[in-house]
Amino acid sequence: MIKDPKKTVVLSQIHKPGDVRDLEGDQLDVLAQELRDIIISQVSNRGGHLAPSLGVVELTLALFRSFDLEKDKLVWDVGHQAYAHKLLTGRLDDFSTLRQKGGMSGFPRMAESSYDHFGVGHSSTSISAALGMAMARDLKGEDHEVVAVIGDGSLTAGLAFEGLNQAGDLGRKMVVVLNDNEMSISRNVGALSQFLSRKMTSPFLQRLKSDVEGLLGTIPKIGDDLAGYAKRYGDSVKSFFTPGILFEAFHFTYVGPIDGHDTATLVKVFEEVKKLDKPVLVHVMTTKGKGYEPAESDPSHFHGVGKFTPETGLARKYTGNGLPSYTEVFGATLCSLADKDETIMAITAAMPEGTGTECFRQNHSDRFVDVGICEQHAVTFAAGLATQGFKPAVAIYSTFMQRAYDQIVHDVCLQNLNVNLFLDRGGLVGEDGATHHGVYDLSYLRHIPNLVIMAPKDEAELAQMMVTAFAYDGPCAMRYPRGTGVGASVSASPRKIAIGKGELIRDGKDAVVITLGSRVYPALEAAMELEESGLEVAVFNTRFVKPLPKKQLLELAGRFDRIVLVEENARMGGFGSAILELLNDADALQGKKVQHLGIPDEFIEHGTQKELRSMLGIDVTGIKKTVKNLCK
Amino acid sequence: MIKDPKKTVVLSQIHKPGDVRDLEGDQLDVLAQELRDIIISQVSNRGGHLAPSLGVVELTLALFRSFDLEKDKLVWDVGHQAYAHKLLTGRLDDFSTLRQKGGMSGFPRMAESSYDHFGVGHSSTSISAALGMAMARDLKGEDHEVVAVIGDGSLTAGLAFEGLNQAGDLGRKMVVVLNDNEMSISRNVGALSQFLSRKMTSPFLQRLKSDVEGLLGTIPKIGDDLAGYAKRYGDSVKSFFTPGILFEAFHFTYVGPIDGHDTATLVKVFEEVKKLDKPVLVHVMTTKGKGYEPAESDPSHFHGVGKFTPETGLARKYTGNGLPSYTEVFGATLCSLADKDETIMAITAAMPEGTGTECFRQNHSDRFVDVGICEQHAVTFAAGLATQGFKPAVAIYSTFMQRAYDQIVHDVCLQNLNVNLFLDRGGLVGEDGATHHGVYDLSYLRHIPNLVIMAPKDEAELAQMMVTAFAYDGPCAMRYPRGTGVGASVSASPRKIAIGKGELIRDGKDAVVITLGSRVYPALEAAMELEESGLEVAVFNTRFVKPLPKKQLLELAGRFDRIVLVEENARMGGFGSAILELLNDADALQGKKVQHLGIPDEFIEHGTQKELRSMLGIDVTGIKKTVKNLCK
Repeated sequence: MIKDPKKTVVLSQIHKPGDVRDLEGDQLDVLAQELRDIIISQVSNRGGHLAPSLGVVELTLALFRSFDLEKDKLVWDVGHQAYAHKLLTGRLDDFSTLRQKGGMSGFPRMAESSYDHFGVGHSSTSISAALGMAMARDLKGEDHEVVAVIGDGSLTAGLAFEGLNQAGDLGRKMVVVLNDNEMSISRNVGALSQFLSRKMTSPFLQRLKSDVEGLLGTIPKIGDDLAGYAKRYGDSVKSFFTPGILFEAFHFTYVGPIDGHDTATLVKVFEEVKKLDKPVLVHVMTTKGKGYEPAESDPSHFHGVGKFTPETGLARKYTGNGLPSYTEVFGATLCSLADKDETIMAITAAMPEGTGTECFRQNHSDRFVDVGICEQHAVTFAAGLATQGFKPAVAIYSTFMQRAYDQIVHDVCLQNLNVNLFLDRGGLVGEDGATHHGVYDLSYLRHIPNLVIMAPKDEAELAQMMVTAFAYDGPCAMRYPRGTGVGASVSASPRKIAIGKGELIRDGKDAVVITLGSRVYPALEAAMELEESGLEVAVFNTRFVKPLPKKQLLELAGRFDRIVLVEENARMGGFGSAILELLNDADALQGKKVQHLGIPDEFIEHGTQKELRSMLGIDVTGIKKTVKNLCK
Repeated sequence: MIKDPKKTVVLSQIHKPGDVRDLEGDQLDVLAQELRDIIISQVSNRGGHLAPSLGVVELTLALFRSFDLEKDKLVWDVGHQAYAHKLLTGRLDDFSTLRQKGGMSGFPRMAESSYDHFGVGHSSTSISAALGMAMARDLKGEDHEVVAVIGDGSLTAGLAFEGLNQAGDLGRKMVVVLNDNEMSISRNVGALSQFLSRKMTSPFLQRLKSDVEGLLGTIPKIGDDLAGYAKRYGDSVKSFFTPGILFEAFHFTYVGPIDGHDTATLVKVFEEVKKLDKPVLVHVMTTKGKGYEPAESDPSHFHGVGKFTPETGLARKYTGNGLPSYTEVFGATLCSLADKDETIMAITAAMPEGTGTECFRQNHSDRFVDVGICEQHAVTFAAGLATQGFKPAVAIYSTFMQRAYDQIVHDVCLQNLNVNLFLDRGGLVGEDGATHHGVYDLSYLRHIPNLVIMAPKDEAELAQMMVTAFAYDGPCAMRYPRGTGVGASVSASPRKIAIGKGELIRDGKDAVVITLGSRVYPALEAAMELEESGLEVAVFNTRFVKPLPKKQLLELAGRFDRIVLVEENARMGGFGSAILELLNDADALQGKKVQHLGIPDEFIEHGTQKELRSMLGIDVTGIKKTVKNLCK
């Protein structure tokens, strides 16, 4: 296995996409292997999205051979499969900086390369974006191809359907490559998914199929002419039993399924497809993790993965603190609460592993629902369940919950339904970067009436807040960070906490730090360290963003003239903003100096959580510095 | 035509849904006519959603006869078609209060009636909600039906597709009634729509069709046996040319299309459908506005309509100020800007009339796109267009733009693309009530980096801000209110304004009111009236919520100790919150009394805009009162 990009024989000669077109003989096979080697080497060293990128090596090569990326537009859906694309577009030398602070993004980004025609990260945007490009081309009278590559998992999202529906209607020349690996991140779900894999259980189709077989069975008895007709007819009807029928209904010309690891055939197909002046869907079958046995066997685990030993696929150099992640504590607690409360249900959007709900699936399969990449539906479906007395727990990453904002407002909170939203990866997520940071949730949720919003400082509080959420008859949201907690032991029977009540973790007299969630312990550590500077700093954990512990906050504002607000969320409209509103409404800001730390008004790029928190001044050092300056 | 509910012969005897089942003979026809009479009478008097409700009178009766609403669950999608449902569920006497403050809601609401099984207002939620109810039923071991009624327009939204995809997968017993009137609010769009209406242009299907015909043509020549086969085969294949094929692909049993105005047949079908233990889609064809000629001829106009003369359908008692609405000024300005700038495009989501873009459609049809009820796609599609140098104007009501929150963050603002969002109906919308108020946009948009956010005080500023948006190379959002402006004349060549700069409309010395958008003139009027009380009140129009005119605001804060912030948006996280953040960051709040007027943290019910603004204290009287109190 080649680990050094410079030692690649073919890859190192590819400086721009067009170079792929000049390759001959077995050079393409060599290139495919070199791409896999470099990708595996990089990801095993630094972590990243392995299985998706390995699955599309040949597809990428075929696209680069058939299309001219100097003028043709290529939109990768989600973009976690674009490592080969990056390596073939002049980014080989920088590839070792992938997902590192100041280095290359883990996703296509327009700002990173002129060959990244659309920035991605969230799923299912590619068809809509590509359709926009196709229409722009036609309006400008230009002549180039537009290609969207979308996975079968991404296709389940409503946005993709909306794009498909209009693309078929507008009839613009464009190619949608359906990269079908029967997976989203986890195994794919939904009727569509079964349809793609030809598990057609519909009695109607079954009946038709048997009719066809009956008819074809009689053909040998009759004359040539009719047999010819029937043969052609039979062929047509047989193709009805392919997924083509669905896409034809949307006015797409369907081509497939095609072996997505057969570059030569793919190129032939793309060359034919380019001749068509209408929307075409090319259905390509790929194996997620292709060419690396551990990833092929467990593509879910290797979808996004930490450092591992390439020879074995086993995780290595574990640098964590040995503690379970918040995700794991959430999952285990949810499972155990559901043991005692039969109305608790778990809903996830294609991420049973990512959200820690896999154990719920195993233990309470009847009350577990994976809706696929359908955050909107997840929330409205939960609202429907809640009207009938169930307490659904909707576990979705903070950044993906953005898709369900309207459903949270309109279907859940307006009706004051007992839906519990659990937003994993709230705050900075680290290496996935700008598209994935969960730093807006407090801002996009806070203004919604009826919603209780919490953030736990540690694992124990997380469990308590979950109990609180299920005990409360109305909508609740809890956001918690990516990564491990602080090692707080979780009670076997966590008790609910008082809604809208915070806790003074440490008293002081010079200043008070008001915070919650992931920033409580750093604030406490900062306060303890500031003792050495002779400062007595109090730390107050509001626990709730909404309702805020008003009485306690006003009491604190009465005692302290120096207040520092800290949050791992956008400063605009978030937690600190809420405190300012409250203090101003109570005319409690007179004579106060209030400093507000949080995410500034800009998109934050990738880096480790530690690096980013430090850069933004919301870690121990940053909090210390701010308090010190304030107390000068 | 019966105008008095008490004079209805059959309807007045219906006190609960079950009473409809007891009707005999021609009573059903009488009831249908009475329902239409009362609906037309009420809407002609007070305005409301006429055409949708008239279109489903027979469907409603059939549903009430076939299902038992005491236990069966019925979810109306959107809910603007539920007037007959309301009249048949004990709300006849209160029907005259429809959409009035303190009266009945214009949409189903769980809090209003136990027969409203799910609250609605936004489209396309019904399948997801009904699926939740169906799953809850099965988990509880109960035995009842669940029915969702969804229009063909609503079906184009991704959320509906997500629900359909999972409903087919889970296979729970439920009925989806597709109310197909070939309309959403305007004429329906998308490939799916053409599919439903059997305009199958796909060459693949065309070819198959001709194959079938060829085969069938040869049948008379051959023996009975094969002819029998072929006949059956032909029938099956013919049914392939119905929309059934699509829904079968999603594992739904398809029944239809059925005349939606034939109550007896509908009842027969529903009785059969109830016997099936799986998801069934019943395709019902209805005429929007049925039974009222003016509405049948112009269903778009009569979708939601103001007062009119029932005999003629003509608008009556026009109580406006004779001025064009903001919507009209927006539409006309967009059209005229597009005359001079070929990169300007207009995108609307099923509402060319509602958003004033109908004229754009007529004058620049090549640059106009109606995406259907697909707000998510609208925004991402616009992002795709913007990557290619176009300047798309996405015109969507504030409340519906909530659906595209993630796309605004992820596809537009993160990539800093030149997409211009025009949010009509920003602020309180009046009679449509809680589901439709556009009072969250400033809060859900403000924390998104790169976005410029504006709100015009009048028609002239609206035009200037549009010019500003198109001149700015990055994402902009402008929100403007429902209703007419103040009569400010719009320049034929509006000039752009400086981004992040406000205007001091009136100076003073006792207090300053800082506001923007719809609240500027009321603030000015309040200030002028306060002169009589001897108060000299300044009024500052920030024009921008983001970036705020920082320098000007700090200068004002330096001059005034009494500050009143006024907005027609949620107080939480909105405009006032932004000013507080800015003043606090600059330590400019010392010695200041800041009062903040806006929408409190609760859902606001229906009423006229005037009533609601008065109730919430954000009208002239409310502002005066607040300033006066502050200056005591």
